[in-house]
Amino acid sequence: MSEVLDALALVIAKRRAADPNESYVASLNAKGLNKILEKVGEEAVEVVIAAKDAELAEASNDRLINEVADLVFHTLVMLDRLGISHNEVLDALASRQGLSGLQEKASRNQ
Amino acid sequence: MSEVLDALALVIAKRRAADPNESYVASLNAKGLNKILEKVGEEAVEVVIAAKDAELAEASNDRLINEVADLVFHTLVMLDRLGISHNEVLDALASRQGLSGLQEKASRNQ
Amino acid sequence: MSEVLDALALVIAKRRAADPNESYVASLNAKGLNKILEKVGEEAVEVVIAAKDAELAEASNDRLINEVADLVFHTLVMLDRLGISHNEVLDALASRQGLSGLQEKASRNQ
Amino acid sequence: MSEVLDALALVIAKRRAADPNESYVASLNAKGLNKILEKVGEEAVEVVIAAKDAELAEASNDRLINEVADLVFHTLVMLDRLGISHNEVLDALASRQGLSGLQEKASRNQ
Repeated sequence: MSEVLDALALVIAKRRAADPNESYVASLNAKGLNKILEKVGEEAVEVVIAAKDAELAEASNDRLINEVADLVFHTLVMLDRLGISHNEVLDALASRQGLSGLQEKASRNQ
Repeated sequence: MSEVLDALALVIAKRRAADPNESYVASLNAKGLNKILEKVGEEAVEVVIAAKDAELAEASNDRLINEVADLVFHTLVMLDRLGISHNEVLDALASRQGLSGLQEKASRNQ
Repeated sequence: MSEVLDALALVIAKRRAADPNESYVASLNAKGLNKILEKVGEEAVEVVIAAKDAELAEASNDRLINEVADLVFHTLVMLDRLGISHNEVLDALASRQGLSGLQEKASRNQ
Repeated sequence: MSEVLDALALVIAKRRAADPNESYVASLNAKGLNKILEKVGEEAVEVVIAAKDAELAEASNDRLINEVADLVFHTLVMLDRLGISHNEVLDALASRQGLSGLQEKASRNQ
């Protein structure tokens, strides 16, 4: 449903079993789920800190954007590790928000 | 780049200034950025806990999927609050992962 | 080793099996470890946010002090739940920091 | 009120302005409050993960005890950085829990 997320999830799945010395994704997986979850937690905290700084214009939005990107990336590594597609998350968001209608409308407007 | 995220971001932007008694998004915004960041942090912790339970098959993947959806939702509320588009995050992911090529290939395969 | 922590741990242990309708500690325990861990995570995030505000003098130190107190409280509830004494944590801190000598000196100076 | 915490807080205060190449506390302070807050958040997440593993007896309590010790340590570094004594936190815990009476009783029983 999102080309960027689809492409990224594909890269992560491919690298999962690569040489841990050559791939960050492989090295995270070699260390295990706990390491991946630590990274998800860390990145969430860095998002919170960067958002506080962005609010006060003490930092450009670029840092926050990059921290959110880090959070998304590590969340995708976690989902991949547990055999869950990111599309299941997007489906949950669509259905719970009653977005099907809105989505339809949005695509019609394109 | 993702219809679901685009549609959800649109809904969030629309509801931002709605009546806090009728809209969850409006009530979060009325409480301020700190409240929104608390939710981002909370949901990240719930993702970590649900992932541990999913790993041990003590819980279905559904709970984890819903927790990740919650995390995405509150992250979108935060980005909206700070005037940042989720597409800037997707762009950062695309460029940093050198995904432009992969993305192109993916879209050609569709 | 700390009268306040000792007394608080005692109260928490006593209330663990109390009526969940009458005791917050009992209600947390009735909901299970996940609920307690969510609270530990939440309070840590609130500490981070309050510390950012304290740094910028946007909030008095009182809020941060109270958030840290909340974090300590819920951490004690967690330790109690898992049958671990807070003194084991203080012992770990003392031994790892090579504090025995310093501690001795500190108590001599009192 | 706690010799271990008092001694540790003293060590942290002394090392705050030391050579960042020789002291971990000094290196954290040289990097700034954000770095210290990242560590507080990280350690909280590691506590949550270790507690899940302790619950399932997949790990000894020792790991959890050490993660909580890490959390306490970095929280003390944060308080020191912001000019707040850990005793203010213990005071808040004592007063809010109405512990003065219990504390008195506890000390009488020693």
